[in-house]
Amino acid sequence: MPTTTGSPTKAKAIFLKDYPEGMPTSSLFEMRDVSVTAPQEDALLLRTVWMSVDPYMRGRMNPHIKSYIPPFSLDHPLDGGAVSEVMVSNHQGFKAGDYVVGFSGGWQEYHVSNGEGLQKVDGGVAPLSAYLGVLGMPGITAWAGMSQILNPVEGETLFVSGAAGAVGSLVCQLGKLKGMRVVGTAGSKEKCQWLEDEIGCDVALNYKDYPDSRALTKALSQAAPKGINCYFENVGGMHLEAALNCIAFGGRIALCGMISQYNNKAPEAGPNNLVNMIGRGVLAQGFIVSNYMHLVPQFVGEVAPLLAQGKVQFRETVYEGLAKAPEAFLGLFKGDNFGKAVIRIGPDRIA
Amino acid sequence: MPTTTGSPTKAKAIFLKDYPEGMPTSSLFEMRDVSVTAPQEDALLLRTVWMSVDPYMRGRMNPHIKSYIPPFSLDHPLDGGAVSEVMVSNHQGFKAGDYVVGFSGGWQEYHVSNGEGLQKVDGGVAPLSAYLGVLGMPGITAWAGMSQILNPVEGETLFVSGAAGAVGSLVCQLGKLKGMRVVGTAGSKEKCQWLEDEIGCDVALNYKDYPDSRALTKALSQAAPKGINCYFENVGGMHLEAALNCIAFGGRIALCGMISQYNNKAPEAGPNNLVNMIGRGVLAQGFIVSNYMHLVPQFVGEVAPLLAQGKVQFRETVYEGLAKAPEAFLGLFKGDNFGKAVIRIGPDRIA
Repeated sequence: MPTTTGSPTKAKAIFLKDYPEGMPTSSLFEMRDVSVTAPQEDALLLRTVWMSVDPYMRGRMNPHIKSYIPPFSLDHPLDGGAVSEVMVSNHQGFKAGDYVVGFSGGWQEYHVSNGEGLQKVDGGVAPLSAYLGVLGMPGITAWAGMSQILNPVEGETLFVSGAAGAVGSLVCQLGKLKGMRVVGTAGSKEKCQWLEDEIGCDVALNYKDYPDSRALTKALSQAAPKGINCYFENVGGMHLEAALNCIAFGGRIALCGMISQYNNKAPEAGPNNLVNMIGRGVLAQGFIVSNYMHLVPQFVGEVAPLLAQGKVQFRETVYEGLAKAPEAFLGLFKGDNFGKAVIRIGPDRIA
Repeated sequence: MPTTTGSPTKAKAIFLKDYPEGMPTSSLFEMRDVSVTAPQEDALLLRTVWMSVDPYMRGRMNPHIKSYIPPFSLDHPLDGGAVSEVMVSNHQGFKAGDYVVGFSGGWQEYHVSNGEGLQKVDGGVAPLSAYLGVLGMPGITAWAGMSQILNPVEGETLFVSGAAGAVGSLVCQLGKLKGMRVVGTAGSKEKCQWLEDEIGCDVALNYKDYPDSRALTKALSQAAPKGINCYFENVGGMHLEAALNCIAFGGRIALCGMISQYNNKAPEAGPNNLVNMIGRGVLAQGFIVSNYMHLVPQFVGEVAPLLAQGKVQFRETVYEGLAKAPEAFLGLFKGDNFGKAVIRIGPDRIA
């Protein structure tokens, strides 16, 4: 029989009150009490330990978006990646006390799952929060963009925008491990310092030092004197235009994100030099991580040992408590977060 | 011993007097007398029978271009694809009287070649001029974009901009032969009529009826109700923006040309919706035909029989005489040419 013995009947969850136009503000978010329902047969009750905020969530706040992933509903809690503890299991694949990571379950303290898409994780291999970052969705994104689209070659030059973020910082390190020259951009002096000193970037550019794509092009052409063979795109706008100015013959571009565009009230004009893609034979592939979920075992097989051996580093900006989730999310668009932004929703174990 | 017996010592050739800014004009071109030199050992003297004008030549008129193909020199005749008769051969691969096609030799009545890149052609299979069009560079371009980039699937929708041109009209027909829904754009009512009546397009749109990308998007979404799976890009500008508005999940784009952009004095802002490439997992591959020259035998093996069986049609706009070459070239940017623009430089045979 389904049971919720030992679990609360009410919990907190965050709702979107309305769809934002332009930059979202904290007033759009509201924390509400929701009922915790008992899991049916073959289902689980999960308690969120860590939740993730990621740039793609801004896209889901546009009710008209046509994407692989549907818009958020205003009638349900927001949703997103989370590491949770299994509180009650009526599912034979899981037992109470297991930790699981999934694309669902964030923005709320408890939720019921049918187990689909959940992976068991072990806090002994890496901190649980790492399964939302370097060993989770951002990690797979970085690895898939590199291995499935960019096909990097030793000695080539890799350019990474948003290089100090959860995705970008792993891309940079995978590039260095491959023997590439790596140039990254970030939005502060500290982040650039970290990229050069810890992550191994050959050059890190603070994009705030460059007022336009022309200025960024100049800096980029100095940092990448042989041209850019691979571009991992997280930012869009002047970053893309500058990259296309410096792209090498046969260049590849992994279009992962365009965070500079997500809060535009009206669409912003695109790069004026797409024609370079023709004469230089450039490939651009847009992707979202769910296209590559079948490769998770290969990703884990490659990246987990690198992490264990200290060959890959990661950094987190930790927010405490569900109430901080909107702030963490809004920080994505203000450059507030260094590495992966994660929110601790509850302790690893509750007594 | 090298010899030029029976060949003239002077001939006409067209030079570029200066590099154009913006739309070129006829005053930039000048016909001059040049010496006809005797071919050295292992070389050939060729007499041009047909020459080609193609949009890519505009790119070569920019001295700063960074592309696989270098800019034109002001000190030499212009150059381009031609079908020629071998007048003198000191090369064991060719004999006097052979017809050859090559990427070189246009814009002049005679030229010397070392034989590199020349293919023998036979006026019995198709008119000699067809080797500058459907069986030549534009044909390979169309075929390679389809077979090597777009990977079309029966039942999918193909959108082709510049559909009544030398490349576009073959792309449309290859799409129909594959069982696709085909939507094309062209710049006149007559061209659209031809596309629908003769080429087999399901819908042909006269882009001049649409003032902006919003209007074109509306028409395109009606013509392609299930979205665009494959886009063969010849035009750029509002065509690309409209295509990206209508692109389907997993869409592919072959970036072949952006003729609307070639005469801009300053770069024009690009499409404002590149972000659609991410959420819809879209691939775009820029290419130039020389990347695919190793596939010429496969192209000929597939397209020549289609032509012989009447399953593929082509159309030409013929200009008479070398002096008309600038007019034919300028016509590319004014929509003057229907199908392939070719210039007859001399008779098939001279007595």
